[in-house]
Amino acid sequence: MDYTSQAETVVTNDIMTPAVIIDTHIVQKNIEKLQSHCDQHGILLRPHIKTHKLPSMAQRQISAGAIGITCQKIGEAETMAKADIKDILITYNIIGAQKLHRLEKLAQRCSLSVVADNAYVVDGLAKTFTKAEYPLEVLIECDTGANRCGVQSAEEALDLGRLIHNASGLTLGGLMTYPPMGDQSQVNNWLKRAKDLLIENGLPCPKISNGGTPNMWRSQDVSVATEHRSGTYIYNDRSLVQAGLCRIEDCALSVLATVVSRPTDDRAVIDAGSKMLTSDLLGMEGFGLIKEAQDAKIASLSEEHGILDLSNSKWSPKVGDQIHIIPNHACVVSNMVDYVYLLDGHHLEKTAVSARGLVT
Amino acid sequence: MDYTSQAETVVTNDIMTPAVIIDTHIVQKNIEKLQSHCDQHGILLRPHIKTHKLPSMAQRQISAGAIGITCQKIGEAETMAKADIKDILITYNIIGAQKLHRLEKLAQRCSLSVVADNAYVVDGLAKTFTKAEYPLEVLIECDTGANRCGVQSAEEALDLGRLIHNASGLTLGGLMTYPPMGDQSQVNNWLKRAKDLLIENGLPCPKISNGGTPNMWRSQDVSVATEHRSGTYIYNDRSLVQAGLCRIEDCALSVLATVVSRPTDDRAVIDAGSKMLTSDLLGMEGFGLIKEAQDAKIASLSEEHGILDLSNSKWSPKVGDQIHIIPNHACVVSNMVDYVYLLDGHHLEKTAVSARGLVT
Repeated sequence: MDYTSQAETVVTNDIMTPAVIIDTHIVQKNIEKLQSHCDQHGILLRPHIKTHKLPSMAQRQISAGAIGITCQKIGEAETMAKADIKDILITYNIIGAQKLHRLEKLAQRCSLSVVADNAYVVDGLAKTFTKAEYPLEVLIECDTGANRCGVQSAEEALDLGRLIHNASGLTLGGLMTYPPMGDQSQVNNWLKRAKDLLIENGLPCPKISNGGTPNMWRSQDVSVATEHRSGTYIYNDRSLVQAGLCRIEDCALSVLATVVSRPTDDRAVIDAGSKMLTSDLLGMEGFGLIKEAQDAKIASLSEEHGILDLSNSKWSPKVGDQIHIIPNHACVVSNMVDYVYLLDGHHLEKTAVSARGLVT
Repeated sequence: MDYTSQAETVVTNDIMTPAVIIDTHIVQKNIEKLQSHCDQHGILLRPHIKTHKLPSMAQRQISAGAIGITCQKIGEAETMAKADIKDILITYNIIGAQKLHRLEKLAQRCSLSVVADNAYVVDGLAKTFTKAEYPLEVLIECDTGANRCGVQSAEEALDLGRLIHNASGLTLGGLMTYPPMGDQSQVNNWLKRAKDLLIENGLPCPKISNGGTPNMWRSQDVSVATEHRSGTYIYNDRSLVQAGLCRIEDCALSVLATVVSRPTDDRAVIDAGSKMLTSDLLGMEGFGLIKEAQDAKIASLSEEHGILDLSNSKWSPKVGDQIHIIPNHACVVSNMVDYVYLLDGHHLEKTAVSARGLVT
């Protein structure tokens, strides 16, 4: 497969920092744990690859039992299809002649579905696929309370469903949502009402795709859903530790950084800034968790520096010391680096993040 | 030069969004304006390339009169040296055998200086350059109040200066600071005292390098400085408009995005999220300024979606409409994309951001 040629074995532990290290043993446990949860509840799992952006990780997820994958951009899906991933859902409204052309080509090499929440998008898809060999499966994106994209009511879902169902190049695949967090019964009611309305009106609704990592252990609460999309669970991160959904030792991705300055007793400066950890706070204090000293705070970031506040910590790192940071948000860190180091026991392998930075 | 081979002429305006567009006419005006200010006050200008990460932009800055450039990482400096940039200051504590080896190689192809704020860093540099053909110039990084890196007092500067001066492979270049914003007279006093102490003790202090874009029009207030490093001024951004340092029409970088969803009357969703605009708020509300409707708010971002709050705006964009966003912080946006579109009048050229993502 294409992606293996981008891998390079690292024969030394002398990694230049900052660097992203991914513990593949933890990855494997995380994959198996959610897969087993979904299997137990009869829910198909369709992992979102935005977290890892690596074909090898998608292959691991599929080997463990995932039905296929979720991508957010065509470029990500193209990269995954090249690596022989066969079943891809792009959960995005695709717009524009060039993107639609790419979508048509992509549909020839994998089993592809997309979503739509408005007639403009459906129209573009229909015109593109009307002469295609096979129709394109389209799911209706529903806003079940997260206030992002999506039709606003079951009635709107029905109108859009009719449009998709009647378009010659398209086939109606059902419903899709990224739900709000909190009580999931509302999400279930919303989707059940929309499904019922579609079926009452003679439209098909074979699939209902729900998503999210924060609610992954309650995915069964949306009992009408046929599949669940989770991304972050493969690596986990500080936001999920904070939410009580995993432990620190379940976090597979860490940033290796070096202390480059100790200007004062209560300040250390590391070589990981916003270009590595990003500015994502996700409602927390500080820009990550230092594994070596959880009471030290990553107080602020400039692009290439992280400023540690040690005033509440007895830890006193020296210049040259290496530290490990669990970032607030793992997915965005994967996007910052051209390559990561996969750690398999004591073996390190440098691997290109081949679906990184694909903005279209 | 290497970088021209990465450029590709775009013959159509049909750009896939999201995309970064850079107006080179505005760039040229911004370059000339700050150069003229520095010339007038007898200050050498050494632009920081972190904002553009493009050799062609560094060449423009040098052609306009800049003495050389500033980089933050060795990888950036390597990329710039390959494109024939001759005078490079890396304002970073360089640590580790592999990086020091790269530094030694780099010093053979350009006039290179670095900084240090502690003995550990000086020791590594000295060991590396003791057998080099030419000594490496090292400036003492001073914390004049920004609370990042830097020695804490003139006395500490003297101690470190002695160490550098006495090391066989190194030559003491003087002082360097990234100043706090606000009153610059304190910065001047700090640096003047350190300079005097070095000279009183028989040490050289030929260069004093000050920096910052927010204080660029007051660079002359630090009269002891011999040079000024600014980065963001070449593109400008919303944070500088907000601070009254430039006008919206002085912002050269904008993000072209497409409206992909209109779920409700007061909500639009665009295809630029945190993977394009980043989560940098820099103390402002919202994640950027929409040129088409400045009263519309980019209220929240997920990785691939921007959620616009239109409740205080009469603007009502349709799905498929393209909009232009001035980001809060231009430098971090350059780092998110593999290429940008340079707009020269009506001509667009797609160019690789060759110093993007170089974390080491």
